[in-house]
Amino acid sequence: MKRLLIALTVLGAVVAPAEADDDTLPSWNDSPAKRAILDFVSRTTTDGSPDFLAPGERIAVFDNDGTLWCEQPMYAQGSFAIDRVKALAPQHPEWQTHQPFAAILAGDRAALAKLDEPQLAALIAATHSGMTTDDFALTVRGWLNTARHPRFHRPFPQLVYQPMLELLAYLRAHGYKTFIASGGGIEFMRVFAEQAYGIPPEQVIGSSGKLKVELRDGRPVLVKLPELNSIDDKAGKPVNIELHLGRRPVMAFGNSDGDQAMLEWTVAGAGPRFALVVHHTDAAREYAYDRQAHVGKLDAALDEAATRGWTVVDMQRDWKTIFPKGPREESR
Amino acid sequence: MKRLLIALTVLGAVVAPAEADDDTLPSWNDSPAKRAILDFVSRTTTDGSPDFLAPGERIAVFDNDGTLWCEQPMYAQGSFAIDRVKALAPQHPEWQTHQPFAAILAGDRAALAKLDEPQLAALIAATHSGMTTDDFALTVRGWLNTARHPRFHRPFPQLVYQPMLELLAYLRAHGYKTFIASGGGIEFMRVFAEQAYGIPPEQVIGSSGKLKVELRDGRPVLVKLPELNSIDDKAGKPVNIELHLGRRPVMAFGNSDGDQAMLEWTVAGAGPRFALVVHHTDAAREYAYDRQAHVGKLDAALDEAATRGWTVVDMQRDWKTIFPKGPREESR
Repeated sequence: MKRLLIALTVLGAVVAPAEADDDTLPSWNDSPAKRAILDFVSRTTTDGSPDFLAPGERIAVFDNDGTLWCEQPMYAQGSFAIDRVKALAPQHPEWQTHQPFAAILAGDRAALAKLDEPQLAALIAATHSGMTTDDFALTVRGWLNTARHPRFHRPFPQLVYQPMLELLAYLRAHGYKTFIASGGGIEFMRVFAEQAYGIPPEQVIGSSGKLKVELRDGRPVLVKLPELNSIDDKAGKPVNIELHLGRRPVMAFGNSDGDQAMLEWTVAGAGPRFALVVHHTDAAREYAYDRQAHVGKLDAALDEAATRGWTVVDMQRDWKTIFPKGPREESR
Repeated sequence: MKRLLIALTVLGAVVAPAEADDDTLPSWNDSPAKRAILDFVSRTTTDGSPDFLAPGERIAVFDNDGTLWCEQPMYAQGSFAIDRVKALAPQHPEWQTHQPFAAILAGDRAALAKLDEPQLAALIAATHSGMTTDDFALTVRGWLNTARHPRFHRPFPQLVYQPMLELLAYLRAHGYKTFIASGGGIEFMRVFAEQAYGIPPEQVIGSSGKLKVELRDGRPVLVKLPELNSIDDKAGKPVNIELHLGRRPVMAFGNSDGDQAMLEWTVAGAGPRFALVVHHTDAAREYAYDRQAHVGKLDAALDEAATRGWTVVDMQRDWKTIFPKGPREESR
């Protein structure tokens, strides 16, 4: 080992061991997770390191729901769809007797939890198609400004994770290009990704419906069709990341079994690779859930993380704060 | 007018008129096309200009074949597919009697020109699927290094247009992010886009086939399937640009009717917009073709460019040189 160190020193390739300090990732406790991140970034961005990556190769991909922001008690986009049904109900008297609309309008959460695939598809079609992409973005923007989380009473964009905001900024400061690869709708997410995360629309990947060019008032616009294009979840994540990026990322971050294929595919590439799983362990400050969760189930991927030595964030232990300080105090 | 100028000067909003000089876009003659480019970039990037765009909004999208590199006498990717059939023929004795393979192996160009859609699909399936994305990229890279253009006797990556290379660099120097949106295959193009144009894989949009995650030697890889995902041509261009970028570009560059929908959609956005059509007028130095061409037909889009005042490049008149100086001299 000593000979190896000397040889590396001669080659100018020794990298100072990463040290956690209070200025870097200040909302992270000094834990193995934080040190693993600092170490990987140091190894891949220090000139002369055997793991050095040229800036163009520094690609990091993040799941969104449960990785960058709160996904409980339901995905924000689910709350959005429900609110859209309520807003559009006066134009659809037939919804009073048709599922899933009747259950939504009656506030029947038990029935909502049991929706089958065709009913979910009908819900998405009714709330996510027929309008132009521009109009849809305006509707989402308005909703994000006014809707409140049922427990924290904050707008959803204030329920991003402060430690992850710091991580995104830290990676970018080290030449990493940060992308989102989410199971959520690509157009929904793009509305807030730039403001909330500093991630521009062209660096957001997500589930999508088909689009069609139409002339409206003599002007070409893109209209959202009620037809699925791709679901960016499970094996769909590597497929869509390849379509958008043309290569494997070197870092991937997720929190559920839906991210497992993305994490496996990322670390299977040659050269230095990094996979991280956010484990929701903090019922007091956020939520605690994993193997039995309906939303954000983390089971097989948690086992694989242990087996393969992926970095696991224990939110309760590793994060000093969960949400950014905002105009509203956190409450239970 | 004078009062307006004074008012604008007071507001600090007057932009110096663009002046063509020899240092900027040196391979472009001082013509209306060059001045239109310089003017637009000046207006959109000069602080205080009424048309100023924040750097994040500066998005320029380029068609590839015929806009950035030579597409005659056939698309490079067509030559690639033909060469692949020849290379793979020993493993496929049945190709000697099946079309389109028999025509290719017999060098029957007249038959090739008449291939119908199912035959073209069979050709693409045989040459563009079954392998991993990594292996496909290696094959393309090898081909680009060895194949030669039938007239210019240069490798295809040396048949990019020198004036467009200068334009790409000029736009990037002014904060524009440059993308490709091509009818060609996304994976084919990504192999050379970074080296040839300085455009990284994640900024390339193109036609694509479906992909599938498979374990090979215990390692997840993406395998190319013989099933179409999307054709990035005509109305497919706005649709795919929206999928990848989440917004309209502000500048778009094309050369054929296949680019018309992209150009129309780009200029229909609010704020400053720029559309340019490359018109192939130079039979001596490259090729002259437009309304009657089998490859790169430019007819309706040429009329629309005239009607709507889009910038048209006349290659013979506007470009001092066509191809970069390379190890091989140009020849006829």
